[in-house]
Amino acid sequence: MMIVTMRPGAAVSEIGAVIRTCQAQDLIAVPSHGAHRTVIGVVTADRSTDLSDVADLPGVEQVSPVSASFKLVGREFREEPTVVDAGGVRIGGEEFVVMAGPCSVETPDQIEACARQVAACGGRILRGGAYKPRTSPYSFQGLGEEGLELLARAGARHGLPTITEVMHPDLVATVAARADILQIGARNVQNYALLEAVGRARKPVMLKRGLMTTIEELLLAAEYILAGGNRQVILCERGIRTFETSTRNTLDVTAVPVIKAQSHLPVILDPSHAAGLREFVPALARAALAAGADGIMIETHPDPARALSDGRQSLDFDTFAAMMDELRPIGEAMRRPLAPAEPLEEETA
Amino acid sequence: MMIVTMRPGAAVSEIGAVIRTCQAQDLIAVPSHGAHRTVIGVVTADRSTDLSDVADLPGVEQVSPVSASFKLVGREFREEPTVVDAGGVRIGGEEFVVMAGPCSVETPDQIEACARQVAACGGRILRGGAYKPRTSPYSFQGLGEEGLELLARAGARHGLPTITEVMHPDLVATVAARADILQIGARNVQNYALLEAVGRARKPVMLKRGLMTTIEELLLAAEYILAGGNRQVILCERGIRTFETSTRNTLDVTAVPVIKAQSHLPVILDPSHAAGLREFVPALARAALAAGADGIMIETHPDPARALSDGRQSLDFDTFAAMMDELRPIGEAMRRPLAPAEPLEEETA
Amino acid sequence: MMIVTMRPGAAVSEIGAVIRTCQAQDLIAVPSHGAHRTVIGVVTADRSTDLSDVADLPGVEQVSPVSASFKLVGREFREEPTVVDAGGVRIGGEEFVVMAGPCSVETPDQIEACARQVAACGGRILRGGAYKPRTSPYSFQGLGEEGLELLARAGARHGLPTITEVMHPDLVATVAARADILQIGARNVQNYALLEAVGRARKPVMLKRGLMTTIEELLLAAEYILAGGNRQVILCERGIRTFETSTRNTLDVTAVPVIKAQSHLPVILDPSHAAGLREFVPALARAALAAGADGIMIETHPDPARALSDGRQSLDFDTFAAMMDELRPIGEAMRRPLAPAEPLEEETA
Amino acid sequence: MMIVTMRPGAAVSEIGAVIRTCQAQDLIAVPSHGAHRTVIGVVTADRSTDLSDVADLPGVEQVSPVSASFKLVGREFREEPTVVDAGGVRIGGEEFVVMAGPCSVETPDQIEACARQVAACGGRILRGGAYKPRTSPYSFQGLGEEGLELLARAGARHGLPTITEVMHPDLVATVAARADILQIGARNVQNYALLEAVGRARKPVMLKRGLMTTIEELLLAAEYILAGGNRQVILCERGIRTFETSTRNTLDVTAVPVIKAQSHLPVILDPSHAAGLREFVPALARAALAAGADGIMIETHPDPARALSDGRQSLDFDTFAAMMDELRPIGEAMRRPLAPAEPLEEETA
Repeated sequence: MMIVTMRPGAAVSEIGAVIRTCQAQDLIAVPSHGAHRTVIGVVTADRSTDLSDVADLPGVEQVSPVSASFKLVGREFREEPTVVDAGGVRIGGEEFVVMAGPCSVETPDQIEACARQVAACGGRILRGGAYKPRTSPYSFQGLGEEGLELLARAGARHGLPTITEVMHPDLVATVAARADILQIGARNVQNYALLEAVGRARKPVMLKRGLMTTIEELLLAAEYILAGGNRQVILCERGIRTFETSTRNTLDVTAVPVIKAQSHLPVILDPSHAAGLREFVPALARAALAAGADGIMIETHPDPARALSDGRQSLDFDTFAAMMDELRPIGEAMRRPLAPAEPLEEETA
Repeated sequence: MMIVTMRPGAAVSEIGAVIRTCQAQDLIAVPSHGAHRTVIGVVTADRSTDLSDVADLPGVEQVSPVSASFKLVGREFREEPTVVDAGGVRIGGEEFVVMAGPCSVETPDQIEACARQVAACGGRILRGGAYKPRTSPYSFQGLGEEGLELLARAGARHGLPTITEVMHPDLVATVAARADILQIGARNVQNYALLEAVGRARKPVMLKRGLMTTIEELLLAAEYILAGGNRQVILCERGIRTFETSTRNTLDVTAVPVIKAQSHLPVILDPSHAAGLREFVPALARAALAAGADGIMIETHPDPARALSDGRQSLDFDTFAAMMDELRPIGEAMRRPLAPAEPLEEETA
Repeated sequence: MMIVTMRPGAAVSEIGAVIRTCQAQDLIAVPSHGAHRTVIGVVTADRSTDLSDVADLPGVEQVSPVSASFKLVGREFREEPTVVDAGGVRIGGEEFVVMAGPCSVETPDQIEACARQVAACGGRILRGGAYKPRTSPYSFQGLGEEGLELLARAGARHGLPTITEVMHPDLVATVAARADILQIGARNVQNYALLEAVGRARKPVMLKRGLMTTIEELLLAAEYILAGGNRQVILCERGIRTFETSTRNTLDVTAVPVIKAQSHLPVILDPSHAAGLREFVPALARAALAAGADGIMIETHPDPARALSDGRQSLDFDTFAAMMDELRPIGEAMRRPLAPAEPLEEETA
Repeated sequence: MMIVTMRPGAAVSEIGAVIRTCQAQDLIAVPSHGAHRTVIGVVTADRSTDLSDVADLPGVEQVSPVSASFKLVGREFREEPTVVDAGGVRIGGEEFVVMAGPCSVETPDQIEACARQVAACGGRILRGGAYKPRTSPYSFQGLGEEGLELLARAGARHGLPTITEVMHPDLVATVAARADILQIGARNVQNYALLEAVGRARKPVMLKRGLMTTIEELLLAAEYILAGGNRQVILCERGIRTFETSTRNTLDVTAVPVIKAQSHLPVILDPSHAAGLREFVPALARAALAAGADGIMIETHPDPARALSDGRQSLDFDTFAAMMDELRPIGEAMRRPLAPAEPLEEETA
């Protein structure tokens, strides 16, 4: 890939001329409009591609190869942070965004209760699994389309955009029609057929790091999605596999500043899957905020002991509310405010 | 899942009656015919399923729940080793089976040269990638269908069944039509959409352990394939990710006796991907044989320095031949003979 | 080990009687005086020791075995947090304590400059290595006793108690005579000869977790020190070894709540060694504070590029000052205040 | 460090002149006499040391810096394999050497029974712990000097040199007086005080790799011993810590060819500690032999279920004998013969 850097103040027509010239050579050209200037990433088949005709076009300042192994996800291509708009919620901006909800959508009442409480506490996105990747073929696999529908309705009732996992390329369209963010799970982080499919979708994608995926591999997996045309990508660290067995996985909180140094994409942490034990989730949520993450994803359940999946790591409603209260002043100290809580008015109704 | 153990010598009609009784309750019943008796695995929706009517049928000795988390892949379900027949080569039997060939099929000459040399040295299966999973979207992705065709023809010319990777559920039929073994790569070991697709195929499947996959998770991933109806499954350990950086990955040779203790499926080791450096491959190949593996998979290339992928870990032809000569006496000591070498007659023709 | 729980309000004479009764049987008895009651840990040779005579003494409420594998370090033995007093600085109390200074004491000017700046920024403990454990025998090994002396003087001039590493049992007395906290390095976390030696010392000990040490093993290593008679122990997580290579090690921030749940000992994080790269240290320091750690240890240097060891991970003075400014409001949000900064008055003098 | 390469056939007096010239500059000079020529390693304080006067001496072919981070342990310094002589048994030569015996010396009868059986099966070195490093201070810590004495006597009665662990620098002389090989345990691999102490001993040392020690770190730890003057060092891989939990640790069999490529020191594998489960030990022992290790270390016990330590991984006598019978033909295939079995004559006496 080559980077074509336009001069500050280059005209739209000059930018268009560069893109058309590239396309005439069957090259993909992706513009990135920064505050001061526009750069255009040109995906070239090999290193010998000659772009000297582009270098001579009006408004072009420089044509240079990208040095990092990742291109479109890198800071070289785009210096300013990407802000993903998911149903009106901005992820990667000033606000620290809390996504929460149950591991699996189980019943209409369960997802409704979760949505109501998430919204009341200042959560902004509703999560809930409809298609569940399970290690064993004999475990509960989710409600499928019915789960999608229940999730969408509960989110709509409480003003919460939704996120849910998609596991099969053939289901991307179905999920994209009902949810606001498509989640790629940790097991599928290098499932290239699936990455290509969501790369063609028109909805934001949240890509979870695998249990043993290096940060470089995660960025390269995201590159598949951006190279496919979808630039609304959020990265999510959810714990890596180490020798330590006192928690389910080990939250790699350092991934936040490391990714921020290399990429413009927003980064979310998932303390629930990392810890695997609810009692450690609030401390990790606070650490995520203080480390500079753009948000967190938290599993909640009205009755964790009876959850069909991941009950051991789900917060009950009181613990979730207390955690949100702890986060708020840290968010202010960090200048990353959380949405205010809106206490439920008619708890007894 | 429940196990219905038939008495030794139970009649085929008795076995059939058990299966029909289960099916009448919408339960899946899978028979396993051992040397002494038949057992029938019954996949039940939950633990409360009542099989007391089955327990009373003629020829039934016992009905018991399976204790391990994996069912059809476990020794409880089938005590005798599974022998997979791949185009006439038996994997999991007495013979130590060597699969070899290039990482990627690159040209007709390259795959022909590999096939010829693999056969001459006593290799039994020809490997070659047509669809390549690559960490970066900008790396060489394989020749696709043309690669499948070249691989099949080279194998046929030299009497070698073939193995190649399939990455997308939609391509399973295409690959199954040309190759003798469908390979599921390490990155897709928990890609359940793909596991279900090859579970419906009629060709043997080799499932590679992921870099981050525990042995229990590998067996559960195989369970998806067997539960889908395909019992011709080979497991492959190819190195796990550890802190050690002097090799690409760390070959977990202990996986061989551990899997053998728990499962009846054949186990193959892949020293090439584990080491990532060709100079260490022969030592690991010998260790695999001595540890009790059913075979190995080795990357070879006529000119490793010019390989389009994985050149650093591919053996040149002389090294491969020398390695095979080292393995043969160990195979005899282990009573796991290799196929004899058939020296090329007309090297100069 | 057994726990003898005294009734609330038990008399000192009753407590003394329990201890003497145990000692008469050659058992070690260690009292822990809590806010509400006293418990006495009795180290028994085996599980069959009969303490029925103790159970009948006046003031004794209950005699029960300790269930966890660690005894004196556990919450069962002592519910309230241990506060370690190091030269007047309380670690494990309300204040979030920052220890800082160079990896190695190099020259009088260097350690003086560090001490002055650490104190000015609100740091409370001065670190500096005099005996350096180095992976290679040919690397700089520290100034030895001269380094101890320089460290002690610089600390005294700026009102900072000091911490430095001791590597050899024979040097414990020498180091204890000059430093306020004895540090056991990560490589020596299971060096039992050394743990026993510092167990007999009269100075606080900071025990660093090894790269390969589970939390349970760390607590058991601390148990050696407490069992030796020294209860002034601080634990320090400094990054564990994982597959990720973009940082030197992986900070296990979850260790903070996990240890707090199991042990009463204070916990410090060391972002410098965990990250190995200075640009990521401030984010990890903030995460440590937010996760509930009792303090952090940070490497600083007046000229990191010329440091004799660990320069890549040392903060220059401006970055350290900026980090302290970031921490302060988070400390207030967490009700874990840092000491105030005392700006240098005569910078130009 | 610098390498002074002498011409083939250089006179002893010329070699001596080089060493004396170095010593006159307070430099340590260590000769290595190869089959064809002598090289002299010169440990220099820093890179600027001027050896131009040495380069001009008669018989000197070349003076060059060592490029690898390890010097005396490296192949650059000594190309031919080091053969360690331990009480008459040669480790690193043609023979594949089996060390075996109990984890801990427990009673006179127990160690006598082990020694007798080890010798009868063709084992060559008797192992047995007298000072035991235990994770918990409350576990059995070994018989101490009495254990040393029992081990030495049992070995002597059956013609077996002995190996036992030393944990404290102050005990090196005591252990060296009774045992033929000093073992440094995995927890002490970077305990530099101890490495320096055994570096001054006159007995061979077996250095075990730590659970999370890279191969490079292991070689650098060995460098401490060689730099201290003791060149009789054996390296031992005993399993590394990974995410896999079905075995105690993961045997890194690849360490054998990797170390052999970089160092001239002999390499032993310890399948017992790696697997932690006796049923997997024989397969790993065979893999060790086939991979090119110079020997193995195996835990045996007359009654593993009653062992005071590590019973779960100790082989009973019949399993050990069967394992030795399996190894022998593989040793022949590898041209690494084992010592012959000498069946016990008077089993009933």
